[in-house]
This record gives sequence, C-alpha cells and structure tokens, in this order.
Amino acid sequence: MLGLNDIKNLLQHNKITEFVKLNKLTPRDIADFTNRHSRWAVKLFQHLDTKSAARAFKFVRKKKQEIIIKSLPEEKAAQLLNALQPDDRTAFLSLLPGNAVKELLKVLTPETRAETLKLLGYEEGSVGRLMTPDYLSIKASDTCQDVLNKIRKLGQATENLNFLFILDEKGVLIDDINIKDFLVHDPGAHVADLMDHQFIALNVNDAQTAAIKVFRNNSRFALPVTDDNGVLLGIVTLDDVLRLAEKEDTREMQKIGGSEALDEPYNTISLPRLIRKRAGWLIILFLGEMLTATAMGHYEKEISKAVVLALFIPLIISSGGNSGSQASSIIIRAMALGEVGFRDWWRVVRREIASGFILGIILGVVGFLRVLIWQKLGIQPSYGEEWFLVAGTVFFALIGVVMWGTLSGSMLPLVLKRCGADPAASSAPFVATLVDVTGLVIYFSVAYIIMHGKLL
Amino acid sequence: MLGLNDIKNLLQHNKITEFVKLNKLTPRDIADFTNRHSRWAVKLFQHLDTKSAARAFKFVRKKKQEIIIKSLPEEKAAQLLNALQPDDRTAFLSLLPGNAVKELLKVLTPETRAETLKLLGYEEGSVGRLMTPDYLSIKASDTCQDVLNKIRKLGQATENLNFLFILDEKGVLIDDINIKDFLVHDPGAHVADLMDHQFIALNVNDAQTAAIKVFRNNSRFALPVTDDNGVLLGIVTLDDVLRLAEKEDTREMQKIGGSEALDEPYNTISLPRLIRKRAGWLIILFLGEMLTATAMGHYEKEISKAVVLALFIPLIISSGGNSGSQASSIIIRAMALGEVGFRDWWRVVRREIASGFILGIILGVVGFLRVLIWQKLGIQPSYGEEWFLVAGTVFFALIGVVMWGTLSGSMLPLVLKRCGADPAASSAPFVATLVDVTGLVIYFSVAYIIMHGKLL
Repeated sequence: MLGLNDIKNLLQHNKITEFVKLNKLTPRDIADFTNRHSRWAVKLFQHLDTKSAARAFKFVRKKKQEIIIKSLPEEKAAQLLNALQPDDRTAFLSLLPGNAVKELLKVLTPETRAETLKLLGYEEGSVGRLMTPDYLSIKASDTCQDVLNKIRKLGQATENLNFLFILDEKGVLIDDINIKDFLVHDPGAHVADLMDHQFIALNVNDAQTAAIKVFRNNSRFALPVTDDNGVLLGIVTLDDVLRLAEKEDTREMQKIGGSEALDEPYNTISLPRLIRKRAGWLIILFLGEMLTATAMGHYEKEISKAVVLALFIPLIISSGGNSGSQASSIIIRAMALGEVGFRDWWRVVRREIASGFILGIILGVVGFLRVLIWQKLGIQPSYGEEWFLVAGTVFFALIGVVMWGTLSGSMLPLVLKRCGADPAASSAPFVATLVDVTGLVIYFSVAYIIMHGKLL
Repeated sequence: MLGLNDIKNLLQHNKITEFVKLNKLTPRDIADFTNRHSRWAVKLFQHLDTKSAARAFKFVRKKKQEIIIKSLPEEKAAQLLNALQPDDRTAFLSLLPGNAVKELLKVLTPETRAETLKLLGYEEGSVGRLMTPDYLSIKASDTCQDVLNKIRKLGQATENLNFLFILDEKGVLIDDINIKDFLVHDPGAHVADLMDHQFIALNVNDAQTAAIKVFRNNSRFALPVTDDNGVLLGIVTLDDVLRLAEKEDTREMQKIGGSEALDEPYNTISLPRLIRKRAGWLIILFLGEMLTATAMGHYEKEISKAVVLALFIPLIISSGGNSGSQASSIIIRAMALGEVGFRDWWRVVRREIASGFILGIILGVVGFLRVLIWQKLGIQPSYGEEWFLVAGTVFFALIGVVMWGTLSGSMLPLVLKRCGADPAASSAPFVATLVDVTGLVIYFSVAYIIMHGKLL
C-alpha cells in the first residue's frame, strides 16, 4: 500500500491520475489513505477525476467523508456528491446532522436531490436504505428493438443493466428479464414473448440482513425492491449487500469473542470507545465468574483437607470451557448458515452428548496418565499415597465436565435464538464462565463420591 | 421448507414444475432436501426440468451429487452434467475417483468434455479451478454492430454478459468493456473507440482466497483470468467467489472457537469425523493447561497456608482468559479485513496495554468490592482477619492478569501471521490456556508480595 510520502510524491509530480489508471491505486487504497491522513486526502481528492473520487468515497469512513466534502471547493464537492451512486449518497447523508444534510442537498442537481430524499424516507436497517432507483423498466408490449432504443437513450446513467424490469401500467413488477435474453432475440419480438413470470423481489421494509440471505440463495447480482403492493421502487445491488454481509460477519465474530460489536474499524476506533465496547461483557462475565469464588467457598473445608484437589481445578474447569467454546462456535456458525435451527435441537443434543462423552474419555485418560506417570517418576509435589483416588477423580470429573461443556455450549445458542436473542451472544467466554461454575460443582461432587472416607 | 411428505405429495400430483416456477421451491430448497433424503431426491431430479436440476445441483453435497448422477437414467444424467456451468461441473468431477471421472466424461458432449479437462488441469485451490470459459471475447477492430451480432449468435450459451473482453490477435487480454457501453453507443462505432485500457485480471495460479479480496476491493460481478503471458483463459464469477468466501468465514469462525475447520456442514458431518476434528485441539489445549497443575504444585505450600487464596483462582485466571479472547477475536477479524497488519504491532501494543490497564482496574475494583462487601455483610466463609490483604491481592492480580491477557491475546495473531501460520489458530481457548498458566504465576507472585510475613 502507498504511504503518506508516496502520495505526497505523486501529488507533487501530478502522477495521481496515471497511477489510478494503472490500477496501482485502487478505490480501497485511496479510502485507506483517507482514513489515515484526512488532511492530505483533501488534496488527493482535488486531484482525482470525479469518477475515481466517487468510487473511492464510499469506502471512506463517515467522519472522514464529512471532512472531505466540507474541505473541497464547493463545485468539486457538488460534482463528487452527484457522481456517487444514489445508495452510497444516501448512506453518507443519513449519518449527517439534519442541517448539514439540508446544506448539502442544495448542491445536488434537482433529480439527484429528489432521489436522495426519497431514499431517506425508509427506516434504518431496511432494504429501502440500500436501494438505488437506477434501473431500467420496460413494458410487456415493447418490442426488443424498443428496449434497445431505450437502453441507448437512458442506459449510460444506469448502474446495473444485467436485468431489466417489466412493469404493468400501475408500476407493479410483473417480471425481470436478463439483458442477454434481449440481445439474442429477434429485434422484432415482443417483450411479452420472453416473459416467464418467474422473479424474486425484496420488500422495501425487509431487514437488510434478510436480503443477504436472499442474495446468497439465489446467486443474483441485483434484486428488485417492491412495496407492499408489488410496485417496483428500486434495486439493490450485490456489492452493497456484500459490504453489509462483511460488516455482519465482523459483528458476529466480535460477539463470539465476548465483546460488543465494535461497529468501527479497529485501527480508527477511539480508545475510550474501544474500552467501553469491551468493558460491558467483561464485567458481566466477571460477575458471573464470581460464583466460582462462592462455589469454592463451599468446598473450602475439602480443599484444606486435600490441597491436592486444588491443583487440578484450573485444568478441569478449563477443559469444560474449551469444549463448550468449540461447540458454541460450531453451532452459531451452523445456525448463521441455516444448517441448524431450533427444530434440530434433539438431534444436536444426541450428537453433542455422544461427542462430549468420547472427548471426555479421551481427556480423562490423558489426565489419568498424567497423575500416574508423575507419581511413578516421583515428580514433586507428590499426589500422596492415595494418588489413585486423585487420578480417578480427575478421570471421572473430566468426563462429566467435558460432556456438560459440550452440551451447554451447543444448546445455549439454540435457546438464545428461541428466546429471540442473538445466538452469537453465547460467546466462548460466556460459555466458559457458565461451565466454570458448574464444572467446580461437578469436580467436587465427583471428588466427594470417590474420596469420601479416605481423603475427605 | 418443504419436508419429505410435501415432496412426495408434489411428485404424486405432478406439481414439481409448477412449484419451481412459482419459486416456492428454490434451488437451495431442492439441494437441502437432496442432502437429507437422497433416495427420494433421485425421483425429484427425474421430474425436474434440466435447467432447474442444474441450478440446484451445485448446492448439493458432493457425495449426494455422486448418488444422484449414478442413479439417474444415463440420458438424464448426461443432460444434467452438460447443463451444469463448467466450473460447477469441474468442482463435481474433481472430487470423484479417477475412474468415475473417466466414465462420466464419456457422457459429456465433445465441447463440454474439452472444457472440463482443461479446467481440471489447474491446481486445487487455484483460481483456475473456479473459472468458467463461458465469456464473450471481441476484437478492437470490431464495430459495435459486429459485437451485437456476435452476442445474438453466441450469447445464449454464455453465463455472464455483463462484461465483454477484448483480445489482441495472440489472445492476450487488452481491455474489458461493460456491456452497457456498447448498447448506448452508435452501432457503427469501433470497439477501439470505447477502450480505456483499464482492467483488472486474476492470474490463473492465484490462490482463490486472494481472489476473494480482489472482488471485495473492486465491486465487480465477474473478473477475467489470464495466464502468465496475459492470455485470457476464462472468467470467475462472483457467485462462486461468494460461496468460497462463506466457506472461508466458516473455517475461520470454527478455528476461533478452538476446533479444526469442519469443512462439512454440521448437520451432515459424521459423528466420528466431528469428534476427530474437535479432539486434536482439545488435547493440545489440555496438555498446555496441564502446566497449571504444575504451577499450582509449586504453590501448594502457599495454598495450604492460606486456603482463601485458592477460592479466587478460577475468578482471576478466567478474567485473563476472557480479556484475551476479546482481544484476539477483534485482532483476527481486523487482520482478515486488512485493517491491521504486522506493521501496526507497536500501535496495537500501546492501545492494548492502555485498554488492558483500564479494564483491569475496572475488574479490580469490582473484585475488591466483592471481598469488602462479603466481609462487611459477614457472608460465610469469612476471608479472615487479614481480609484486606486478600482484597488487595485480588485487586492487583486482576490488573496484572487482565493486562497480560489483553496484550498476549492481541499479539498472538500478529506473531502467528508473521511466522507464516494462520492467525485464526490463536483461538479463544488457546489464548485462555496460555493466560491461565501465566495468570497463576502473576496471582501467586502478587499474593507473595502483599501477604509475605502475614499470611504467607
């Protein structure tokens, strides 16, 4: 990637346009640079041609976008805003305070303004906010030649020409047709002859996250958006949905890691906000984990009688946490992909109990061998004369804890989903905390049964 | 989703085609059904029209694909194979044993066979395996009318017509042009007039994962693939890249959860394989966690002198694990998005030390209050007369452990990447295990300093 000095050099030697042409400076590169050095980015944007500037602008962080627009000469700023895709422009404007929007709308051309205002009327997070009204609509009674003429007239301003949309006289969407079906047909044929009345459309009030799934399941590059009456309002293109999906995946991963979703890139989020996003869950987990101190308090006598028991506490409870983390991340992802749902809970229970049992035995054997081998080699501290009881306790406790960890790790996301909560909230640390507390109870119960009358 | 009985009903009443037309039975639905009930799916595939069957086929699991193809009447199977997109067909064939491929290649039409064999020559995981040779190439000397005629002749068989590719006489790619640029131009104009010599191409030997990034950064729906001499070999379309990206994200999340990547859907992977994928890391983590037993062994005397110390062990070490999990998942994702790289390590260190210090103080205060309040309320078991020392130990140990957890959780992915390993391998459980062992050392060291001469 080009650094500050490279860009300074390019600006000095007027080589920006050349570099962009050679694709050595991609829209993402420009955006990255802008996010880091907004003062220099203003100069950079002054030198870019409007098209390249518009392409890069949508990748720039909102705050920096505002700086760029406000720092550019008014004419240049207007050119840039007008050159943006309608949906990108809306995304930018919807984050500005009301007055700033009003000011900026003034520099937009009348058509652009109307478009933008219309898009701004839809709820945040709805498909309406993603859509662009840049599509070509045709009538069933048109001939293929009519359509080609229309494309020649209006096509240049249209973002996406892969599909054309057929509307009835009320504007209701009745079909979509791949552009290539027109091109390969006799120019005299009527649109009606090509129609198969098979089409997929999004509702303008659908959640954007639902739109991601429709795109994934249908391998489409653009989808039409209709209102409740089936009237075509605009289209949503895959590139916007992709950016959205990437953002959703980031949120999910951050939540699985036991933090709130940052909703900002790591390299630009401010330290106080970074800490705030992390502190919430950390405190909740800490409060939950305090129950371990309470549980341990109940077993204080047992520990003072057999200190050897304390030695294995971290080992035992962390094994439960690890197996639980595995199970929950696997299930959360399977749910996100639609492979597993609440209806499958019984199947998941059976599989996870079986997995947990076998994994528990494997770890149990390793744990047993550890005690045995250390004892036989005479490694200090010794586990005492009753080492066999210690080894047995470790073995059975591991089976119980790993089974419990696996089971609760896999069930938690399903239960959260069932309760209408976000399955990704059952993060690895959350499951680990849950299993730590119960793991202690399992461990000391097993110890009590095995060691009763001997060590305890 | 439709169940077994619904499909049986539809088959009985010959309504399959109608349901597919109405989009009540999407390609994904058919694939899901096939993955669950392969015997009935064969009947379903016999009733589907070839086009719908081909659309659904690529979503079907490889093993089931093989069953379907082998169970269908030979003619029907050949129709289906020939109707598949070249890249989907290659993906299917490359997973079959050599002899089965040879048998199946026989049923392909000569052109289809040549295509498939060519595609099969490229390395697994390379862009070559994803590409389809279904594109339209034109010459700079063509007129727009020539191009339209060519489209009319060859366009129907072409998967993607959004871009046309301009080749020189040696087949070297010299430009790509959006279809709409042709449609809006005067039919008499020459292709050469429209060219800007700006294009992005993938190399046939590029890794598929690298292709995902190029698609993300360039908002394109299809990209050309060239060999080392710049000769156009085929194109890669976004839908295939999307499926690949989804798979990569799944792998990453499963690894973050501390398991091997399953590489199969959860609901269809066999139990032995599910267990094997999970056991490896679980055993490694367990062996690592055994060091806690060793560490605890060194502090056995301290524990028997002050059993109260043992009570807080799970609380302290898990706080380190939790803050480490947060940090590592945030950094892993930021790295995957290209927001953070090894070059930023010093900045990450400073931010994470600051975050860890403040988060540590927050948890430390909560921990301190816990001891104080429990003591004042007289909740049993009491922390003894020296409870203030206990509270102080908890406070300072938490600061140390949380800082250490945050720092190591954030550095580990960067270091792994630097060593050429997969950053996602520094899973939440892996970090937690690392921090557990060192957390114990920090805790007992703090205890020794604070309690020396009093309790210890």
